[in-house]
Amino acid sequence: MFIVLKPGVSDAERERLLSELRAQDLTALAVTGNGERAYGLVGPSSLLETLALDRHPLIEEVIRDSAPYKRASRALHPEDTVVSVGGIPVGGERFVVIAGPCAVESAAQIDAAAAAVAAAGALALRGGAYKPRTSPYSFQGHGPDALSLLAAASVRHGLPVVTEILDAADLEHFRGRVGALQVGARNMQNYTLLRAVGRSGLPVVLKRGLSATVEELLLAAEYILNEGNDGVILVERGIRTFETATRNTLDLNAVAWLKRHTHLPVLVDPSHGTGLAELVGPLARAAVAVGADGLLVEVHPAPAEALSDGRQSLSPDAFARLMRELRPFVDAAGRRL
Amino acid sequence: MFIVLKPGVSDAERERLLSELRAQDLTALAVTGNGERAYGLVGPSSLLETLALDRHPLIEEVIRDSAPYKRASRALHPEDTVVSVGGIPVGGERFVVIAGPCAVESAAQIDAAAAAVAAAGALALRGGAYKPRTSPYSFQGHGPDALSLLAAASVRHGLPVVTEILDAADLEHFRGRVGALQVGARNMQNYTLLRAVGRSGLPVVLKRGLSATVEELLLAAEYILNEGNDGVILVERGIRTFETATRNTLDLNAVAWLKRHTHLPVLVDPSHGTGLAELVGPLARAAVAVGADGLLVEVHPAPAEALSDGRQSLSPDAFARLMRELRPFVDAAGRRL
Amino acid sequence: MFIVLKPGVSDAERERLLSELRAQDLTALAVTGNGERAYGLVGPSSLLETLALDRHPLIEEVIRDSAPYKRASRALHPEDTVVSVGGIPVGGERFVVIAGPCAVESAAQIDAAAAAVAAAGALALRGGAYKPRTSPYSFQGHGPDALSLLAAASVRHGLPVVTEILDAADLEHFRGRVGALQVGARNMQNYTLLRAVGRSGLPVVLKRGLSATVEELLLAAEYILNEGNDGVILVERGIRTFETATRNTLDLNAVAWLKRHTHLPVLVDPSHGTGLAELVGPLARAAVAVGADGLLVEVHPAPAEALSDGRQSLSPDAFARLMRELRPFVDAAGRRL
Amino acid sequence: MFIVLKPGVSDAERERLLSELRAQDLTALAVTGNGERAYGLVGPSSLLETLALDRHPLIEEVIRDSAPYKRASRALHPEDTVVSVGGIPVGGERFVVIAGPCAVESAAQIDAAAAAVAAAGALALRGGAYKPRTSPYSFQGHGPDALSLLAAASVRHGLPVVTEILDAADLEHFRGRVGALQVGARNMQNYTLLRAVGRSGLPVVLKRGLSATVEELLLAAEYILNEGNDGVILVERGIRTFETATRNTLDLNAVAWLKRHTHLPVLVDPSHGTGLAELVGPLARAAVAVGADGLLVEVHPAPAEALSDGRQSLSPDAFARLMRELRPFVDAAGRRL
Repeated sequence: MFIVLKPGVSDAERERLLSELRAQDLTALAVTGNGERAYGLVGPSSLLETLALDRHPLIEEVIRDSAPYKRASRALHPEDTVVSVGGIPVGGERFVVIAGPCAVESAAQIDAAAAAVAAAGALALRGGAYKPRTSPYSFQGHGPDALSLLAAASVRHGLPVVTEILDAADLEHFRGRVGALQVGARNMQNYTLLRAVGRSGLPVVLKRGLSATVEELLLAAEYILNEGNDGVILVERGIRTFETATRNTLDLNAVAWLKRHTHLPVLVDPSHGTGLAELVGPLARAAVAVGADGLLVEVHPAPAEALSDGRQSLSPDAFARLMRELRPFVDAAGRRL
Repeated sequence: MFIVLKPGVSDAERERLLSELRAQDLTALAVTGNGERAYGLVGPSSLLETLALDRHPLIEEVIRDSAPYKRASRALHPEDTVVSVGGIPVGGERFVVIAGPCAVESAAQIDAAAAAVAAAGALALRGGAYKPRTSPYSFQGHGPDALSLLAAASVRHGLPVVTEILDAADLEHFRGRVGALQVGARNMQNYTLLRAVGRSGLPVVLKRGLSATVEELLLAAEYILNEGNDGVILVERGIRTFETATRNTLDLNAVAWLKRHTHLPVLVDPSHGTGLAELVGPLARAAVAVGADGLLVEVHPAPAEALSDGRQSLSPDAFARLMRELRPFVDAAGRRL
Repeated sequence: MFIVLKPGVSDAERERLLSELRAQDLTALAVTGNGERAYGLVGPSSLLETLALDRHPLIEEVIRDSAPYKRASRALHPEDTVVSVGGIPVGGERFVVIAGPCAVESAAQIDAAAAAVAAAGALALRGGAYKPRTSPYSFQGHGPDALSLLAAASVRHGLPVVTEILDAADLEHFRGRVGALQVGARNMQNYTLLRAVGRSGLPVVLKRGLSATVEELLLAAEYILNEGNDGVILVERGIRTFETATRNTLDLNAVAWLKRHTHLPVLVDPSHGTGLAELVGPLARAAVAVGADGLLVEVHPAPAEALSDGRQSLSPDAFARLMRELRPFVDAAGRRL
Repeated sequence: MFIVLKPGVSDAERERLLSELRAQDLTALAVTGNGERAYGLVGPSSLLETLALDRHPLIEEVIRDSAPYKRASRALHPEDTVVSVGGIPVGGERFVVIAGPCAVESAAQIDAAAAAVAAAGALALRGGAYKPRTSPYSFQGHGPDALSLLAAASVRHGLPVVTEILDAADLEHFRGRVGALQVGARNMQNYTLLRAVGRSGLPVVLKRGLSATVEELLLAAEYILNEGNDGVILVERGIRTFETATRNTLDLNAVAWLKRHTHLPVLVDPSHGTGLAELVGPLARAAVAVGADGLLVEVHPAPAEALSDGRQSLSPDAFARLMRELRPFVDAAGRRL
């Protein structure tokens, strides 16, 4: 449930109302961008129904909406949120392609990747410094050294960096070097990390968990928003189903659903979403058409030699082709690449 | 495994080779459209590897392909198959939209639906005469009477009909009245029905089962093709996953995968694929972009009064808007509506 | 919703009440075994709530139960239904093990299998005559010849036969030869077949579909019960999930849930449920403990040579061991093997 | 792949062999409990096959096993590992029931719960101090205060405590108060936390993620074992599937599979596994029968008033009945309660 106060309600009146609600075990969460008049109410839903809020003298409107997320909801925040990632606006008119290798392997590799994706029209650079790997014996990423290499490539090619953080204790290594922190699918419900990236003030690219519902994704975003950080970008990256022909099942229903229910930008990762380089192009085009705000794409200078995810990575040539083939669909969607 | 015979192999030579293979417990399935020179080999895979077919004097080429489907495969049939549904070519340049109500409810309802979808640019009419319903107490469709109403609407509005068959015993009611038989998701592995529709000679629209893999879908198609019926059209209509925000999870990965692995046309059903009228538009656009050959869309003159599936049906106005919004994406895909 | 009429309601009064309900578009389904006093009401649920049935002079009790299945429900049929399969009572005190090969391959094979399972304590024989195979090129079963072999083995070893029917047109081949018809997982929502086996009057062993919910399983049973056939036995045989270490995920939650919500017997198939012979024993013991009424187990005289499902079939020795290891758990459950 | 050195290989010889392997980019992981003669080899599998290790003069045996986990594997560690949780041996002859409320709510509540579960035969106390909640607005646990209350109840009722840790920074609050740390399903792939609990030296109860395969669960355990911590206990707590009648689908296949592939103890959580108090009993019995080493069960003094998970919590009476009904099955399994 949401409430909107009448125009002209004084600070004192507002405080009195909020304390009345608190006395009933209800919390009123201020929803930003509404002139301090809109609140999401959290509390026992039975109670919400019995309170006669519709007739309260200070309340102009009551919006009945049973969704448990409040700050992420479009209900009182109809306009799209645009998040700036190192100066690149995500969620606005531009369709933003963020590309780069699964992992930073060497200075030469990340530089070649950055040069290639910049040339083809990507607006930001992705690449893993800390890699969450299923096995402790797999390559875990080059850590802070990789962050330095990313920062150098970022400056040289004019691309802000998006890269995953696994441990809040590493936050200082990221600050000043990245345009946005990424929280990976495995950590979507790592609430310690969500709160820490929330408090960091940096933009956060939040990937959907392998078996998370869209409602759970919005509640994970809510943990970040609730720390006062409005810069949350959601990513659909495929869910786990019975189908084994593809690595995951890219859920584009989720993108359309999210665009209706939240004001936050939504990206699509067709690389993890399919696991097969040859399917990345068609699914990238579908992501544009379904209304996504951009893409995360894995590009490696030499996919066959990649230390991880080679099977789903595009070569620079294949990525340039993808960008060319994307253009008419971006036009059809009324956006710009 | 596939083999291609050398040009100029005589009938007698071919028969000798085929009987050699049979003697080894291998079956050679002729793949149509290759001048009687291409065969898919079915048999124990260990045997296939040990036979020195590469060096056989009558064989020009051996294609190692472990897929269990043969006639549905693109391996020896690279060009797209175009299936004529009552004169409408499905699988060619045109993007074919088939629309209509979940079930035929009355003469007035199906006529209004047909008029609306024809006006908006649909090329064929869908509508259920026999309905497979989870509960025996739900409306089961008006059967042969509904087929007559469909046939009348078909003639009046110039739209061939696509409608579901549940029982091979009803086949004669369909013949002469429909452009294509539909086999529904629940019957995708009803082999009795697949063989019967295969033998019917009528085009078949085959929907993917709720938890069928794409390989299983192609093997279901193979049952129909194996009866000598080349007119098979596949439909992705959403799979069953853990996500409950949408009725099913529309698997557009599957469409891209199918377009690479089979020459058969592939349609998308965003109505069942999402279960929510407000998501049909964005997913329809995504279907165009991912490379589908057309759509199956539920349209009802008055969705709120529909006897079934009202929540996912479009009104005539919403359908007309969907068609308008589809156009730039169909253009981007280099096709025609 | 269910209603129970007052004792002593006359036939005329009952008819009057039923026609009152019909006039409101409600159907009252007689629930067997309640002295013609209990009815399940089917119709628009909003209507059900507004009718003041609690105060109706002929009605003793109204049971609010929103489940869409009526005849399968325990709500008015608290006692367990016992179904006789060729004289073997399924659903009563005995824990009934039905065993045999995936497919009937030869007279010698089925005879050896029947001898082995009878010696180890199985009470009925399973074995496929008609096999639903994913590929049209796989072994499809020996059909009517296999039914004759099953019948001969049945007589020789004193084991009634349970075997799958794929096509209602084959029903006459089954009659007189089998103790129960099996409807397989792929056909759980083949309503044509469900109605036909319902009308056959033979007991039906109904397997849960690969992605069917337990409610859908009960509604499939309802199709059979609704034809006047009370002999329905349910089978949990594993569902399709993301896990690939086992062929399917055996859902023993479903067994416990079913035993609370329906009076029909419930068997477990640990062979298909795991796909791995080495896991059949532990899951069979778990099935006893969770409250199942029996098992369907694949046993082959020589699993390594089986034409199908060899990986999940037990040898005669392994089956004999399974039966020995089952015994203390059957005792613990207060039942008899 | 695993290797076992010949008896009598000297330290110098062993070091030489290990450095030969390292020179080939292979890591040899010592497997504990094998007299420093057994090693799991990690490296490119193609390389492993081409090395002629079978003929190496220092190597007695090569075990070909493609599993990516080494220290968790039974291949070279056939005997069961027994983990002591505050003096209670888990994984041995005793079937260990760990019970208590979802969350510690108050001193009175946790004391009443501990008293009840101790009286009924539980050997350890569970209860959440830090709660991972889907929504940031839900009760998040009383944190360090709850740990103090748990410690007090532990002492008073003689039950070691098992409770979840969300953040490695809180570790010092747990030390000295708990018998084992729990890593919850949402954090199963939070590698930062896995490494931290591994280094803590405390026993770890590791729950399977909602959509984690059993192989991924063993690799998560491998992260802990790889820090030198042998005290890992696995928990099957239900996976996410399409079925909605139960909260999760308890995967007892996984328990049987794990008992074959790992030497680590395996518990079952039928409370989260079903989400329904009335199904906890039958699934607990099934867990015994399938070979689990114990249970995690939610018990609350007054389930209807619980701040979380009330629907799946047992009352003290229901828990006492569960323990009584468990006994004959524990006997049948040849174990002790």
